[in-house]
Amino acid sequence: MNVLVLNCGSSSLKYQLIDMDTHAVLCSGITERIGEAMGKITHKAFPGTPGQKVLNVEEPFADHTAALGRCAGLITGGEAPVAKASEIGAIGHRVVHGGEAFKQPTVIDPAVVETIKKFCKLAPLHNPAGLMGIEAATKLFPGVTQVAVFDTAFHGSIPDYAYLFPIPFELYEELGIRRYGFHGTSHGYVAKKLSQVLGKPFEQTSCVTVHLGNGCSMAAVKNGQCVDTSMGLTPLMGLMMGTRSGDVDPSLHPFLAENKGLTIQQVDSLLNKQSGLKGICGLNDMRDIHAARENGDKKAELALKMFCYRVTHYIGAYLAALDGCDAVVFTAGIGENDPDVRQHACETLGGIGVKIDKERNYGFKRGQITKISTDDSPVAVYIIPTNEELEIATQTYSLVNGK
Amino acid sequence: MNVLVLNCGSSSLKYQLIDMDTHAVLCSGITERIGEAMGKITHKAFPGTPGQKVLNVEEPFADHTAALGRCAGLITGGEAPVAKASEIGAIGHRVVHGGEAFKQPTVIDPAVVETIKKFCKLAPLHNPAGLMGIEAATKLFPGVTQVAVFDTAFHGSIPDYAYLFPIPFELYEELGIRRYGFHGTSHGYVAKKLSQVLGKPFEQTSCVTVHLGNGCSMAAVKNGQCVDTSMGLTPLMGLMMGTRSGDVDPSLHPFLAENKGLTIQQVDSLLNKQSGLKGICGLNDMRDIHAARENGDKKAELALKMFCYRVTHYIGAYLAALDGCDAVVFTAGIGENDPDVRQHACETLGGIGVKIDKERNYGFKRGQITKISTDDSPVAVYIIPTNEELEIATQTYSLVNGK
Repeated sequence: MNVLVLNCGSSSLKYQLIDMDTHAVLCSGITERIGEAMGKITHKAFPGTPGQKVLNVEEPFADHTAALGRCAGLITGGEAPVAKASEIGAIGHRVVHGGEAFKQPTVIDPAVVETIKKFCKLAPLHNPAGLMGIEAATKLFPGVTQVAVFDTAFHGSIPDYAYLFPIPFELYEELGIRRYGFHGTSHGYVAKKLSQVLGKPFEQTSCVTVHLGNGCSMAAVKNGQCVDTSMGLTPLMGLMMGTRSGDVDPSLHPFLAENKGLTIQQVDSLLNKQSGLKGICGLNDMRDIHAARENGDKKAELALKMFCYRVTHYIGAYLAALDGCDAVVFTAGIGENDPDVRQHACETLGGIGVKIDKERNYGFKRGQITKISTDDSPVAVYIIPTNEELEIATQTYSLVNGK
Repeated sequence: MNVLVLNCGSSSLKYQLIDMDTHAVLCSGITERIGEAMGKITHKAFPGTPGQKVLNVEEPFADHTAALGRCAGLITGGEAPVAKASEIGAIGHRVVHGGEAFKQPTVIDPAVVETIKKFCKLAPLHNPAGLMGIEAATKLFPGVTQVAVFDTAFHGSIPDYAYLFPIPFELYEELGIRRYGFHGTSHGYVAKKLSQVLGKPFEQTSCVTVHLGNGCSMAAVKNGQCVDTSMGLTPLMGLMMGTRSGDVDPSLHPFLAENKGLTIQQVDSLLNKQSGLKGICGLNDMRDIHAARENGDKKAELALKMFCYRVTHYIGAYLAALDGCDAVVFTAGIGENDPDVRQHACETLGGIGVKIDKERNYGFKRGQITKISTDDSPVAVYIIPTNEELEIATQTYSLVNGK
């Protein structure tokens, strides 16, 4: 069976068609600038294979339905068709926020759509986009089972003492204010992958997963269950990111209001868009930061140190919570490909049982699962490439096929 | 030499007169409701000795000078004089915020007063009170050397990557927004005490100090230097406290503004006064919480778990930063006297080398330095009673005597 995976932003739509027998990606693409004067599709048929074909389309798309319709045309017809429409067996949607209602992938029906709508309050930028994708796919593929896979779902097992904030309890009851966490599909995927690598049942695998990409978050997984994660009610909490601050003193808001005359929304915007790596050194891409460091830029060096120190902090905190851990797993763009970040983040962890092997760390090969700890490290360290699309497809396939 | 230690709040004044040869407390007291219609002094001469005398005074005090004048009268005359005025050799003031200027105890002169005034912006509730105490003592004891001992000073050695927040760097340069930390006198005192207990030079002692009282904070001390602490720009950040939240998602402010119509000041007040233990279970005193737990109060149980889990989190984070640690040290009201909190906080730390001995933990004696880890614990765990007044007196004495 082929599963179509959709990941919608407010003006974008990413997709992959995956053959679940072989896990081959039949095609992948991204549609940008939906609703703008001119839109754009970058479509790859049979990506990464000798038969790869890249198609670029520039034309306006009124909405997500129009955009998805055009993508469907590229998938099933035109210059490089990869499957018939009838061969799309199921559609898996990335939905960012499942609130407390969805701790599992869920077949979409009108009641599920209504519930996802309710959580727009909790993810005002993301959930409406996901809903547009669901609406488009339901119109265009009326007979095909649609499954929602939630970014929050893997964190559904976090215990109350870790997911509640120490604020009036009524705010949790009334508004659902709590830690939800994000990147759950990625954390779950690499944690399961780790259990396969270790040859252990997932239910006996404990690890700390470190997802460092555009957004950064970590999770503590105990015996296959997530028990803590660094993002909170929103993706602003936790680690330092490209432009997001992560954890700060909660008195920053009144202090900036008092001393700079900023409004609550201006502080929020500052913490989301002008902070993180960018706030410290003006650059928000770690590759640019390394280039600047090599040119002697001290602010870039500082930004790197701050970034890594916060990862160190959470690794320690999660090892403390886990009481026994098989491995620390680095994943996502930076986690997989940046040996400097991994080296700095693990440098001082020897005392708590995490010993990184510098040679292995720097000798990693892109896209490969690699053990980068010393042989005598009580807690192993791995690079495990994430694959959220494959995980969404797998969860969708399993649900549709009752597995 | 006798040193008078003063600790002023906006309407209160605590004092101790300490004989530095013996470390005996000659008298101690607290003046409350300064500036109100009726004030109150509770004064103890020779406290905790067979000669103890408790004097209660109820009369109005116009300001801190009037209050301190009356206290001076009780110290040097009346029913139970403990010393002549001429025998007060120096006065040590607790000053909350020394900004980046004061990393050491400092003899007070007009320039120092001006600099402390500058930091009122950073500690609007505390520094003005400290200045009132300095003003009063300067008037009443004109020839006596006055020393300011700063709550932030011990944290002055924290490296930039740990003290900076991941927000625009200009905000640090322009407004001094950074992690300062508080309770430094207490963290420094127990860390030094630990080095004595271990028989190691302070410069070779590394530890995590856990100060749990009305306010709660932790510090990571590497080779006698503080390298991180949990409080930030203000005492709101970090651990969960009686009524303070500690760390929360920084998006809480805009979320509560949007969904509850709260202003930035109302959110700040909520996080400072209605949160923490009180927010979860309605009680902010840990002793009341234990009583409620025994009566089956599930919210009280939850509040305790949340409180301890956050201590666990920071112990792990700081062990990760330290790369080798002699001991975890519990201190202050809760830290010294609450075995349940210590047990819960350390319960899952075996994997990172911290093994608490339940029998030793519950068998502790109040006010005594006690080792509560197992003999084979790689990192020891101690209860070390704090004594901020003695530490302020000691620092004052050392400075005055050039030691």
